[in-house]
Amino acid sequence: MASFRRIMQIYSRYVACLSLIHVDAECGCRRPRSTFPVWRASQKDSIMAEIRFASRAASIGKRPPPIVALDAIKLGGGNAFPDLLPDVSAEAADVATLFRTEALQYGPLYGLPELRQEIVRFLTEDGVTANVDNILILNGAKQALDLLLRTLVDKGDAVVVSRPTYLSALSIIRNHEASIIEIDSDEGGMKVDELEAKLRRLRAEGGKLPKLLFEVPDFHNPTGITLSEERRRTLVRLAEEFDFFILEDDPYRRLRFSGEAVAPIKSFDTNGRVIGAGTFSKILAPGIRVGWANGDPAIIGRMAALKSEGGCCPLTQRIVLDLLRSGRIAHHIAELTPVMKRHRDAMTDAFRLHLPEARFRAPDGGYFLWVELPDGVDANAVTLEAERDGVIVFPGQLSFASAPPVNFIRLAFSYCGPDQIERGVRKLCAVVRRQQTDVSAQPGQAEALSLAGRHYD
Amino acid sequence: MASFRRIMQIYSRYVACLSLIHVDAECGCRRPRSTFPVWRASQKDSIMAEIRFASRAASIGKRPPPIVALDAIKLGGGNAFPDLLPDVSAEAADVATLFRTEALQYGPLYGLPELRQEIVRFLTEDGVTANVDNILILNGAKQALDLLLRTLVDKGDAVVVSRPTYLSALSIIRNHEASIIEIDSDEGGMKVDELEAKLRRLRAEGGKLPKLLFEVPDFHNPTGITLSEERRRTLVRLAEEFDFFILEDDPYRRLRFSGEAVAPIKSFDTNGRVIGAGTFSKILAPGIRVGWANGDPAIIGRMAALKSEGGCCPLTQRIVLDLLRSGRIAHHIAELTPVMKRHRDAMTDAFRLHLPEARFRAPDGGYFLWVELPDGVDANAVTLEAERDGVIVFPGQLSFASAPPVNFIRLAFSYCGPDQIERGVRKLCAVVRRQQTDVSAQPGQAEALSLAGRHYD
Repeated sequence: MASFRRIMQIYSRYVACLSLIHVDAECGCRRPRSTFPVWRASQKDSIMAEIRFASRAASIGKRPPPIVALDAIKLGGGNAFPDLLPDVSAEAADVATLFRTEALQYGPLYGLPELRQEIVRFLTEDGVTANVDNILILNGAKQALDLLLRTLVDKGDAVVVSRPTYLSALSIIRNHEASIIEIDSDEGGMKVDELEAKLRRLRAEGGKLPKLLFEVPDFHNPTGITLSEERRRTLVRLAEEFDFFILEDDPYRRLRFSGEAVAPIKSFDTNGRVIGAGTFSKILAPGIRVGWANGDPAIIGRMAALKSEGGCCPLTQRIVLDLLRSGRIAHHIAELTPVMKRHRDAMTDAFRLHLPEARFRAPDGGYFLWVELPDGVDANAVTLEAERDGVIVFPGQLSFASAPPVNFIRLAFSYCGPDQIERGVRKLCAVVRRQQTDVSAQPGQAEALSLAGRHYD
Repeated sequence: MASFRRIMQIYSRYVACLSLIHVDAECGCRRPRSTFPVWRASQKDSIMAEIRFASRAASIGKRPPPIVALDAIKLGGGNAFPDLLPDVSAEAADVATLFRTEALQYGPLYGLPELRQEIVRFLTEDGVTANVDNILILNGAKQALDLLLRTLVDKGDAVVVSRPTYLSALSIIRNHEASIIEIDSDEGGMKVDELEAKLRRLRAEGGKLPKLLFEVPDFHNPTGITLSEERRRTLVRLAEEFDFFILEDDPYRRLRFSGEAVAPIKSFDTNGRVIGAGTFSKILAPGIRVGWANGDPAIIGRMAALKSEGGCCPLTQRIVLDLLRSGRIAHHIAELTPVMKRHRDAMTDAFRLHLPEARFRAPDGGYFLWVELPDGVDANAVTLEAERDGVIVFPGQLSFASAPPVNFIRLAFSYCGPDQIERGVRKLCAVVRRQQTDVSAQPGQAEALSLAGRHYD
């Protein structure tokens, strides 16, 4: 537990650091024990001890706001490559002028009908059949998970995730007080055979069957793996047989460097069991905050009813719509993909050069490299030490719902250019080397670092 | 119950109608009984009957997406006056160019620090002392209520509202499965004496004390009343004595036509009991979707942790920041306020002319007129009939959590100009006159209308 607590301290510090310049969109900071040190604001935190929080909030540490900027090499969060953020100034000005009464008035709860229609068209390119009634515009794809949990999951209900899985999804699922069923992954992604066996066992024993399964099937976060068509079909079959829904979170699909695309899980769904979540964050710009959910109107309609803040910003929606229609998003994807491939190559090359015993699978697309450090190396200690050397990576533990292995790290190759990536990985590998030559001293050292950083939490 | 069901059908239709052109941001559509007819999408709604919804979602009807536009006079939702929506094209283009890597990258979870600082300054104009750690940027003020409920309120916990209250707040509170304590209002707003007596009684009887009180103290929605300083101080005292929090929802404060401003409830709060919710929706443009919460970091930090979609759009935040700094928002408020006053005057004049027996209190600011129709008139029937005549108003029942009186309507004077307002109120009053001369036939007639409109739901 001490280790988990430490890693959460580290992580919240990273998020805080990243936030000041280019914030990471992912969140963690769950507080598993009351002993977890909570960040203190500069002003008197007078009433805190007495607050009767909701049970979902009682176990959460406050998310620290940004405190300090680090001149660090940021290989942690999945941020966009700044050099390729598009120039949308003409579209922004046009929308604010020509569509003023639309862009600045309350927008429709489901989103602009024209944008929903354009997303339908976008999805057909992937073999997904939808109509405008299936589409709900959201402030990014994470909101799809949040609203779907609100729609389906009561406190204590079970949700299936792969092991490892997207760390922010874990936070959001925990915030709904769901119980988490982890299914191991192999080189093909989530082991659906294991899932099936688990479900049959649960049913036989009268256990609680899941209501929802969360998966990132394309260029999985963090593993980068793309799930095979066979496994996708199996997931849909199991969803029907065992009466659960699937959230297919698919932000990276269009960023494929090599290999053949596999049809989305949603394309195998004939009975409304799959809700697709998409976003323009990775294929245009995360700051635009436009994503969507695609699902059966019975589900989508409830998600809309639970979307308390009303319709999303019509100004940014109309900008995205213009960019979709003009082909600029397609053009941007075409421009971005080879650049991301070069970033990935820089990262994998650097590991091969500086730490050949590190194990990883070069992903065919997406943003992330999932690295297994040599046996005996503690990734948490490496993460802390690397930060001191100016390199930010995420400890792999954050991607596990329970009993995490100690020697994985997640790196994003999206944000930094190839030179920075090479420099960052070189420094990181030097830290690993130092840990390897001084394994016995490492736990205490990490603890000291953690304590030194406590004021960040 | 039949009446309530009917009114919900009507309301969802209005929202749908408004949505196509200028959507109303407020939502309702709770389904109190399984007999409530649910809107059907054009595609097969195949699995709906079987879905194991979360309990919060099981009682909610789907929110219908826009279906048909009406060439109607829209006095229902609190939309912005289109003629005065500002030209932000220069700011939008500048931000997209000069702040590209900020505007299009993931934004900080708490919002842009500079905007938070500027909101601190904005709040000092109202006598509220805050610092940047108190401010969380949100997608409008309703999200403050949602996140505060998530932070404080478990299923079954009690929340206090005035009677009547903001109809969307009722929906959001219900979506959290809270129990609602309604406190009557008089000409001074929420009767805090009654609240105090209720709280003492609850404590004496070992009943469930509330965790949260929701109030719109300035130009209350729907009544338009401004709560006195004495009552505000009493609310803070009661919050401390009975250990609850207050959400002060204050979107209309700066739109004052006459009378003296009363200091915000938050300004009397010395112990973090009050969370202020603000928005640029009414003083700049609702489509920009920028609001905030101002509260103790212990609360704000948890609200941030539960904000699943991450930081708000930095593009729109930076636009708002530019407009705040350049003084254009202050200028816009100065321009908008007398226009809203003329709208209000047009509405009150029209009622005095066409239905002198209608009872209302001309508000000193804000967006809404709350009208008590003559005894014996059914506001639901009037609402339905008025819609057929091309005038949209909201039945007052939507603003009550329980046992609504039948003869109130809420009108927004914000969206339509004076001529349309005069025409709309004239038509509405003609409907009332017809109802008055044919009271006995009215219930059946309304039922027929409702059935005819069912396909809209």
